Amino acid sequence: VRFRYVIGPDGTVDMADRGLAYGDGLFETMAISHGQIRHYPLHRDRLVSGCSRLGLPIPGAEELETAIRSTTAGIERGSLKLILTRGSGPRGYAPPQDPAPVLLLTAQASTDRPAPHISVVRLRQQLAESETLAGIKHLCRLEQVLGQQELGQRDADEGLMLSTRGNVVGGTSRNLFAVLNGKLVTPDLSRSGILGVMRRAVIARCAELGISCVERDILPDELAAADELFMTNALVGIQSVIALDAVTFAPGPLSARLRAEPGFSC
Amino acid sequence: VRFRYVIGPDGTVDMADRGLAYGDGLFETMAISHGQIRHYPLHRDRLVSGCSRLGLPIPGAEELETAIRSTTAGIERGSLKLILTRGSGPRGYAPPQDPAPVLLLTAQASTDRPAPHISVVRLRQQLAESETLAGIKHLCRLEQVLGQQELGQRDADEGLMLSTRGNVVGGTSRNLFAVLNGKLVTPDLSRSGILGVMRRAVIARCAELGISCVERDILPDELAAADELFMTNALVGIQSVIALDAVTFAPGPLSARLRAEPGFSC
Repeated sequence: VRFRYVIGPDGTVDMADRGLAYGDGLFETMAISHGQIRHYPLHRDRLVSGCSRLGLPIPGAEELETAIRSTTAGIERGSLKLILTRGSGPRGYAPPQDPAPVLLLTAQASTDRPAPHISVVRLRQQLAESETLAGIKHLCRLEQVLGQQELGQRDADEGLMLSTRGNVVGGTSRNLFAVLNGKLVTPDLSRSGILGVMRRAVIARCAELGISCVERDILPDELAAADELFMTNALVGIQSVIALDAVTFAPGPLSARLRAEPGFSC
Repeated sequence: VRFRYVIGPDGTVDMADRGLAYGDGLFETMAISHGQIRHYPLHRDRLVSGCSRLGLPIPGAEELETAIRSTTAGIERGSLKLILTRGSGPRGYAPPQDPAPVLLLTAQASTDRPAPHISVVRLRQQLAESETLAGIKHLCRLEQVLGQQELGQRDADEGLMLSTRGNVVGGTSRNLFAVLNGKLVTPDLSRSGILGVMRRAVIARCAELGISCVERDILPDELAAADELFMTNALVGIQSVIALDAVTFAPGPLSARLRAEPGFSC
């Protein structure tokens, strides 16, 4: 399979591209730090899982890394967005037998330092449950868009989104961790949400530090009693939640400790 | 708000377009019959509902109709695809305050006559439930893509898709009607599925003919005992279901009668 590489920011895709027509593709947003992609193996791994789930061809590792290096050349600090689509096809949902996938890459320099603390409000917009689509970073993100639209009417940094079943999933663009009764927990994402790269890195680092993290269903009412709440995202790293609706929290020791770890500072 | 019109088939969109990045947009696929868009007011109406639901600007009626006329000029029979996106924006799910939406139009001539009868198999791929997104024809269609991918491994014309709650929703690209104990029913689509233009036209025409149609939750097991099953879609019109998995059906009288109505023949 031949992938068509498009390097941004001024690239275009055909109007018949299936990424546009049906959300038939995947994306990754990666942090560039000291001229390198932070946690690249985890991004690559999620991309590959997404390809397997959607039946998309997997981009060759070397070819992709060469394209990434040329896209990010000269950027010390910033972000890289990758979009992989199944490419153009004839009308209709059926994927073409011989897809000609497209890989779009854009890098952006940035000097922003993300805030260490954020405020969160619970949103009305819910996240649907789908075992086939949960976890991977596919292009169908209207629920997150509507969540952000709702957040724009509120006075907070991030929104808390629940599944249609009423479980906590996370933020619109962040995963959530809570310390409840001294135990670290994070939502089980087997039916909704995205398995964040920073979430995975945090779970792995905590295991190395002897802190086990339980992935389970979490009800929103459990969060008010949390000892500590924090959110994660590949670009912003680890942010302490200092308010959830009317409940305030002190910035917790675990998020401070993790932020000091190599590879987690932003 | 200024809409950017792109007339296909060779048009492109920016790689930063939100339709591509997040499925942030809508589409319509319309039949061209005798040089006219069939059921255009119903397509327009669904597009406008979708815009309201997603907070997208609504394209001006005259401007859109002029663009459609120029796209379909000279085509007696075929199809017209319209994609409306929120246009390009900065990175992140939050919709831009001043969107520059994009309207993509492509027409295709066709002489295909859709089959009057189709076979259907039940698919494993489910449809998630979302009250915010149900009904409208937004661009996030991965479940339908995966449904068609599964159908490609089977020997049938269309797949029957259920919601995650286990209710019948319809085909991958068709709505379903059933005559059960002499009564016409069709799935309630307030939590999943797309409110098809042909579905709406069928319900309206049946009402004029004195046949009431009940929209309700339907369990898959109810369908085996149906007096008649048919599916609808704006391009293919009304098709009798003559097999659902191992159960066969005779082509029914209601679908035959509706196919003979003006505006329903294909």
